[in-house]
Amino acid sequence: MKQMNPLEELRHSCSHVLATAVLRLFPEAQLDIGPPTDQGFYYDFDLDHRFTQEDLERIEAEMKKIIEENQRFERLEVSREEASKIISDFGQTRYKLGRLADIPQGETISFYRNGDFIDLCAGTHVSYTKKIKAVKLLSIAGAYHRGDEANKQLQRIYGTAFPSKQELEDHLRMLEEAKKRDHRKVGREMNLFAFDPEQVGPGLALWLPKGTVLVEELEKLAKETEFDAGYDRVRTPNLAKENLYHTSGHLPYYEDSMYPPMELVEDEGGQKVKYYLKAMNCPHHHLIYAATPKSYRDLPVRLAEYGTCHRYEKSGELMGLMRVRSLQMNDAHIYCTEEQFGDEFRAVNDMYLKYFELFGIKKYLMRFSTHDPSRLGKKFVDEPVLWKETEDMVRRVLIESGIDFVEVPNEAAFYGPKIDVQVWSAIGREFTLATNQVDFAVPARFGLTYTTSENKEATPLCIHRAPLGTHERFIGFLIEHFNGNFPTWLAPEQVRILPLNDSMRDYAEQLRKALHAIRIRVSVDGHSDKLGAKIRRAEVERVPHMIVIGEKEAANGKVSVRSRIRKSFEGEHTVDEFIALMMDEISSRRLPDSFQTEGSKT
Amino acid sequence: MKQMNPLEELRHSCSHVLATAVLRLFPEAQLDIGPPTDQGFYYDFDLDHRFTQEDLERIEAEMKKIIEENQRFERLEVSREEASKIISDFGQTRYKLGRLADIPQGETISFYRNGDFIDLCAGTHVSYTKKIKAVKLLSIAGAYHRGDEANKQLQRIYGTAFPSKQELEDHLRMLEEAKKRDHRKVGREMNLFAFDPEQVGPGLALWLPKGTVLVEELEKLAKETEFDAGYDRVRTPNLAKENLYHTSGHLPYYEDSMYPPMELVEDEGGQKVKYYLKAMNCPHHHLIYAATPKSYRDLPVRLAEYGTCHRYEKSGELMGLMRVRSLQMNDAHIYCTEEQFGDEFRAVNDMYLKYFELFGIKKYLMRFSTHDPSRLGKKFVDEPVLWKETEDMVRRVLIESGIDFVEVPNEAAFYGPKIDVQVWSAIGREFTLATNQVDFAVPARFGLTYTTSENKEATPLCIHRAPLGTHERFIGFLIEHFNGNFPTWLAPEQVRILPLNDSMRDYAEQLRKALHAIRIRVSVDGHSDKLGAKIRRAEVERVPHMIVIGEKEAANGKVSVRSRIRKSFEGEHTVDEFIALMMDEISSRRLPDSFQTEGSKT
Repeated sequence: MKQMNPLEELRHSCSHVLATAVLRLFPEAQLDIGPPTDQGFYYDFDLDHRFTQEDLERIEAEMKKIIEENQRFERLEVSREEASKIISDFGQTRYKLGRLADIPQGETISFYRNGDFIDLCAGTHVSYTKKIKAVKLLSIAGAYHRGDEANKQLQRIYGTAFPSKQELEDHLRMLEEAKKRDHRKVGREMNLFAFDPEQVGPGLALWLPKGTVLVEELEKLAKETEFDAGYDRVRTPNLAKENLYHTSGHLPYYEDSMYPPMELVEDEGGQKVKYYLKAMNCPHHHLIYAATPKSYRDLPVRLAEYGTCHRYEKSGELMGLMRVRSLQMNDAHIYCTEEQFGDEFRAVNDMYLKYFELFGIKKYLMRFSTHDPSRLGKKFVDEPVLWKETEDMVRRVLIESGIDFVEVPNEAAFYGPKIDVQVWSAIGREFTLATNQVDFAVPARFGLTYTTSENKEATPLCIHRAPLGTHERFIGFLIEHFNGNFPTWLAPEQVRILPLNDSMRDYAEQLRKALHAIRIRVSVDGHSDKLGAKIRRAEVERVPHMIVIGEKEAANGKVSVRSRIRKSFEGEHTVDEFIALMMDEISSRRLPDSFQTEGSKT
Repeated sequence: MKQMNPLEELRHSCSHVLATAVLRLFPEAQLDIGPPTDQGFYYDFDLDHRFTQEDLERIEAEMKKIIEENQRFERLEVSREEASKIISDFGQTRYKLGRLADIPQGETISFYRNGDFIDLCAGTHVSYTKKIKAVKLLSIAGAYHRGDEANKQLQRIYGTAFPSKQELEDHLRMLEEAKKRDHRKVGREMNLFAFDPEQVGPGLALWLPKGTVLVEELEKLAKETEFDAGYDRVRTPNLAKENLYHTSGHLPYYEDSMYPPMELVEDEGGQKVKYYLKAMNCPHHHLIYAATPKSYRDLPVRLAEYGTCHRYEKSGELMGLMRVRSLQMNDAHIYCTEEQFGDEFRAVNDMYLKYFELFGIKKYLMRFSTHDPSRLGKKFVDEPVLWKETEDMVRRVLIESGIDFVEVPNEAAFYGPKIDVQVWSAIGREFTLATNQVDFAVPARFGLTYTTSENKEATPLCIHRAPLGTHERFIGFLIEHFNGNFPTWLAPEQVRILPLNDSMRDYAEQLRKALHAIRIRVSVDGHSDKLGAKIRRAEVERVPHMIVIGEKEAANGKVSVRSRIRKSFEGEHTVDEFIALMMDEISSRRLPDSFQTEGSKT
């Protein structure tokens, strides 16, 4: 019996209480499964009646009654025959018998009972329903039985639970806030990006001018950061012939996640060829490594590219910028010796931490996935010494750097240990940002070598890393993290000039030119409406700094600043003073006031 | 009879003299055609004997004899029957009868005779062979009859001719120099780019780290220049559904020049879809224009993108970076009113001229292609007033700006006048750089509109422009133009430190770090060989500035500079002095000494 952690236990128990309540109100419902999740719990029901919002309220009320009844959770371990009988007696044969059949021979079969309710379940649970202090049903969604579109679509009820009412309230407030900050909504208000599923295709983002500023500022940041860290940049084509992907191992295994090939007969030689859009940059980078001979003097070689990849994600899984079919990745591959690995890995982590600070990401977690020695040569490439050495090194670096991490055994990639990076936005919403991987296997598949100082051939290790993930996903995260109120250096429009009336137009335009000339992103609100309307417009479009121009300012050549992210900028300044403030603000890439911590305040 | 210009006449006459000489030496040769070209002339022969280099010399000697004989070129106009008889009598029926059949009924049929030689020919020619003062045969190549691979491959002899011996010598020296500067050769020596036709595909360049510097510096330049000129940047996907290309008109007409489609059944809806890699950025930019409503206040809208396009060029036509299948274009589309057109077009031209100056391009020509009013509604979109107004405006701007241009009637695009930009490299080699087009038609096809100040709907004009052409072609040009000796701001490696021996390694590394910290691209030559070898290596790799570090420099903390492009940098400097020189050199984007003109010397 695998013990769940207390929060999982709590939520898992809630899903049983949910099912109990549903059967009380809808006795004809057939149950499938009801696990806890990262954010709460759900249960899947098969029922002709379509659940409504009112049903959710009734069910939640019924759940609270069951909690008050303080039913005990009781575990029963039974034989397979007894299990069948329990399921039949309880009238839940439609899905539960199949779930029973999934349990391998020899494994314990268990049920959990609370009151009249009984469910096939590995556990674990809280002892009594009254332990549930704070529960809330959230939504209803369709979900295919076993996630397979060929099966019947069931009704999934989502809910969440916390050890205390306060925590539940905080969570619900976060969800409410997350809805307001939804990157699709903010993106529309700020004109950042668009999709055209009919003419371009689903999941292929068109970056409008203001969204493109975000893309290009992030690239500039990455290029500067990577130059300073000794990376070289490369550019590689977006497609390649199929044999490259056979060498890399993407084909045939990964084919479902790729766009279909472009098939043609080469006009010279008449050879039949399939070209695929690349789904990852690695194979192309390996070719660049191999294009010129390498010696130990050249290592480490760090090849970086904001490479464009295409993945044919299922249309049902596409979601704004968060899941797309064309993505530009902050990719790099580091080729190094085993001796260099520790330093290289440490430098990659330092880069992550630097970015977290720059973007005001205060909570993060690195999930360090390691191998299982008993599955070498099967699930994991058979390099026992390399596995041990690299994992030890990674673990040591993580500990030494004081990085928050958890170790997850048996979840490494086939070719080496990996680290998944999770971050929490300013409102506490979790995002998976990126994955770092160590790769023992692929350099050898591509025949990558270097000459050692003893003039021998050796194979380098390869680190795959992408601290800023993809433009699409990272910008989606940043929009929600900042609610569109980006730091000045990132803001699509940095300054908006609001002339009080048409007679200030000339001064406004003169000012715009002066700011534009030093490459500040600035515009003039040329509408003829009132100041209040101009301010509201700038607020919806999240322009960080507004300059209000009235008679007085035009006469004395000053500016009156209204700032949404920097209190200290407010008030009257000469143009030169304002320019100096802005130049420093931009070059320092300072966070908005609301993100400032003690250390970063200046 | 269309009169050729004097140089064409001269070269065309040479091709007849060439054929005369070949028939004297190889009477069994069958002649096809022999026109003048931009660079000289050729003639295509069908002959079992394969021409050798020695044959070329014999043929050239025979040509000189014929020139000395001072044969007169005599024009004969004849009937179709007489023409057949002349061809038969001269024993040249294999190709010439077919060429005769090509001449439309009613058109004049003419021959040109010199001595015993006679050739079906529209003309025109010089009066006597002695007018040919300087001629040279250059090479032999295979060429299919009528350019069709299904036909027999003939032997093409290339030559060139000039009005004077001096001009011929200059031209031959240029060709010799061009061979040394061939961008494929220099690219290899400098490790700029690679192709992998087997694994990636022909015509798909892999930019190695040093070539990527060129790509990114050009992008930086373009982004700065375009920001200053009021452009907005966008990013668009590399592919789209076929209906977008039907709207744009690329399909079906342009399909042969595109990669074949990716065909699939969308997982949602089961709709059959074809995705194409984009061959041009225009359709995507039009969608971005249309994504948000536009008013007269917003115009002109200038959308810029270094967009990646894919074109399936015939493999036989691929040539290094000059003709490729994946290209990144310095593209932009300007949407404006008719009133704004003049200023916008002028600004585009100014940008060209600024770039020419920056890159030391001293000779250029704009070919201004206009419409033929008699073909409105057929070859040209039926907008007589717009054609006239725009062409007048373009002509006026070209004249006012003092730009070198020629006007070519009847060669405009279907949808508006166009300008092809030709430039000459430092050694006088000609390149077609880019095309600007005015577009009356496509904005309407895409339903692009703006609201006028009278609150009516109107269609904007669109200017397509790409001053830096594509990365591939422009960098190919720059490599040959500079012979790889780029200005410092562009140089892949800006400074190389050459320690005299291993004991200076620490100082060298300390210096490298100091320069790298201010983002200078610098390396240390870590080999243990002699200074001479290190210098030669840096020269082959075209590193502009070398710092030699000996005992003295290491002791007094100075640097001894050896510069290949900036005489004034040579000699001993403190590190700070050298840094100041470099910072100014880079930020000013100054040309190498050998490119400095009076005006640009500082």
